[in-house]
Amino acid sequence: MELFQYLAPTKVIFGRGTEARVGELCKEQGARKVLIHYGGHSAKKSGLLDRICQALDAAGVSYVELGGVVPNPRLSKVYEGIELGKKEGVDFILAVGGGSVIDSAKAIGYGLTNEGDVWDYYTGKAPAACTPIGAVLTIAAAGSEMSNASIITNEDGWLKRGAYSPYAYCKFAVMDPELTYTLPPYQTASGCTDIIVHSLERFFVKPNVKQLNLTDGIAETLIKNVMRNVKIALKKPTDYDARAEIMWSGTLSHNDITGDRTLGDWACHQLEHELGGMFDIAHGAGLAAVWGSWARYVMPTNPARFAQLAVNVFGIPFTAGDEEKIALEGIEAMEAFFKSIDMPTKISDMGIELTDEQIKELAYKCSFKNTRTIGGFKALDINDMEAIYKLAK
Amino acid sequence: MELFQYLAPTKVIFGRGTEARVGELCKEQGARKVLIHYGGHSAKKSGLLDRICQALDAAGVSYVELGGVVPNPRLSKVYEGIELGKKEGVDFILAVGGGSVIDSAKAIGYGLTNEGDVWDYYTGKAPAACTPIGAVLTIAAAGSEMSNASIITNEDGWLKRGAYSPYAYCKFAVMDPELTYTLPPYQTASGCTDIIVHSLERFFVKPNVKQLNLTDGIAETLIKNVMRNVKIALKKPTDYDARAEIMWSGTLSHNDITGDRTLGDWACHQLEHELGGMFDIAHGAGLAAVWGSWARYVMPTNPARFAQLAVNVFGIPFTAGDEEKIALEGIEAMEAFFKSIDMPTKISDMGIELTDEQIKELAYKCSFKNTRTIGGFKALDINDMEAIYKLAK
Repeated sequence: MELFQYLAPTKVIFGRGTEARVGELCKEQGARKVLIHYGGHSAKKSGLLDRICQALDAAGVSYVELGGVVPNPRLSKVYEGIELGKKEGVDFILAVGGGSVIDSAKAIGYGLTNEGDVWDYYTGKAPAACTPIGAVLTIAAAGSEMSNASIITNEDGWLKRGAYSPYAYCKFAVMDPELTYTLPPYQTASGCTDIIVHSLERFFVKPNVKQLNLTDGIAETLIKNVMRNVKIALKKPTDYDARAEIMWSGTLSHNDITGDRTLGDWACHQLEHELGGMFDIAHGAGLAAVWGSWARYVMPTNPARFAQLAVNVFGIPFTAGDEEKIALEGIEAMEAFFKSIDMPTKISDMGIELTDEQIKELAYKCSFKNTRTIGGFKALDINDMEAIYKLAK
Repeated sequence: MELFQYLAPTKVIFGRGTEARVGELCKEQGARKVLIHYGGHSAKKSGLLDRICQALDAAGVSYVELGGVVPNPRLSKVYEGIELGKKEGVDFILAVGGGSVIDSAKAIGYGLTNEGDVWDYYTGKAPAACTPIGAVLTIAAAGSEMSNASIITNEDGWLKRGAYSPYAYCKFAVMDPELTYTLPPYQTASGCTDIIVHSLERFFVKPNVKQLNLTDGIAETLIKNVMRNVKIALKKPTDYDARAEIMWSGTLSHNDITGDRTLGDWACHQLEHELGGMFDIAHGAGLAAVWGSWARYVMPTNPARFAQLAVNVFGIPFTAGDEEKIALEGIEAMEAFFKSIDMPTKISDMGIELTDEQIKELAYKCSFKNTRTIGGFKALDINDMEAIYKLAK
């Protein structure tokens, strides 16, 4: 079996009203001047930002605010945050939001502690530090609150790229499931798709890797749990238990407990990143739109692995010799599930009619101008990428 | 639902031959003078210690050695380590062994960084620091490599007591399943019992706690995985996959991913600690010897929770209204499993014939001279403790 690594040093405080503890948590980290980073109006309107400011005031921690982070967070906002942070002498960043806000906070943290253009760290350069970050999670999806990842979109060319480093782990994450009650159905479903796919990407390991049964078992348990609870949350958005199950699943799906990320596939994420850069779609929806086509395209490489998913997650009976048939049934079952929560299974389901030129452009960008392959389970070159975009059209 | 916390900041390096990386890992932590702490002759005889010294030499990290840690690690050895560490200017402790060695290392670390007698931290005083610790795991059982716990036995009165603090988390843990090949069958079975019971203690939560389905699911998956793989490892001690499954299960069973330890029960651990202090038995065997009696005694408090264990772990069909009957079947199934791996289900199975006086003494010590109750699932006073020791006799 391949060597794996595991590191998830974030301190989690989970439960109702836990955002009240954010002042003491920042103080514990030695924060003196906090940048409160957030998205749109909802954090303000709901009173959440006021409660957070009160908690910081009570702890004697000063702060400055920067809102306006959008989904597929923009490099221009990151630059704005770096400038503000330098001007104000910020030594801690508190991200109040979902993955976009946390990712933007990480990018600002890189910019405040490393020389040169922060975009360099999203195109291959290794950062040497990051301003410490804490998160108050309001969207269960990206898992950025306990991952080393940050994904930023550069408006110059609409490139969506990731930076990964151990410096980017949040020092703490405050998780109050009630803060996700107001998330609209589409975002709830999209977030849950993202959660599921984070474990699927890890499940489809590189050919030389034998995943532990324990790790597979945790991944399968988590995927089934999210599939069950998203339906409850869509019916009743204020179901605390369902929101809590989804929230903790989102964190564990991306903190490597369901598999070391470096051993996984990630082709669907790369394919989606180009779609997200070009069309500004919801990340989870984009993943659902390409997953089935990717799965059908790569399944013949190892039908037994897809059959395991079908048997253990969807309860399809195992029949020796029928692996390929069972694998296809599993892929169909996953697509049926996506449809059942109103997620797309084709790119056109999102109202996007891709032209052949756009497909070529997507594949060209995704292959870094035809200089790389993607995918751990099966390596895909620019032609494979084009073929999958065409299948997913 | 109750608030829970999660913190498991240890960096894990898992796989064959990973002990070769221990030099670079110590260096990464800024170690200049390492105390290599270990148990008996096997680490020397197997060549493991030599390989570790070579790795430290290659990294330019100097070191001093202290062996002789025994199961139920002794306070006298801890004092010896503190003295040596002070004399030698040790700034990092490398524990090479299982839970006993890691726990002893943590105790030495407390002694090197806190004023006064280190035993105070095992009787309620909160430590303010700990020398950084790394682990090379050679026994899969205690989970100390990723827990905040350290359990030490004071020969003066044979008291076995625990200290818990966030300072005690290992900075890194190197896990090579091959290092556990030579573990004898009894220690393998005892270790696996400890692993299973760590998740069982967490499964039986306090009455006001509703555990997440995800957390329960991970615990149930882990317990089933250990039950399966211990049988494989007992038949073929050099089965890499089985040893790897057990090793990672041991870590995850005690790093809070199967439940926040502060919300669990832990009565069986407390009851066993007194037995271990008095009779120096293998910890896992002691747990197996009392678990069934504890379970029968407390089950009427919440038969449905025991029924969940029976249904989800042992596949006993659920029948509404039959919870108590199903619960008992589950307890019997767990005891049958313990017997199947040659673990005791009574204290007398370990060759110990408890007298009434000894039972009184055990309960008196376990209740801290009749000043505390134990057990989160059901609080047990000194009379309950006596009753359970009698049942388990």
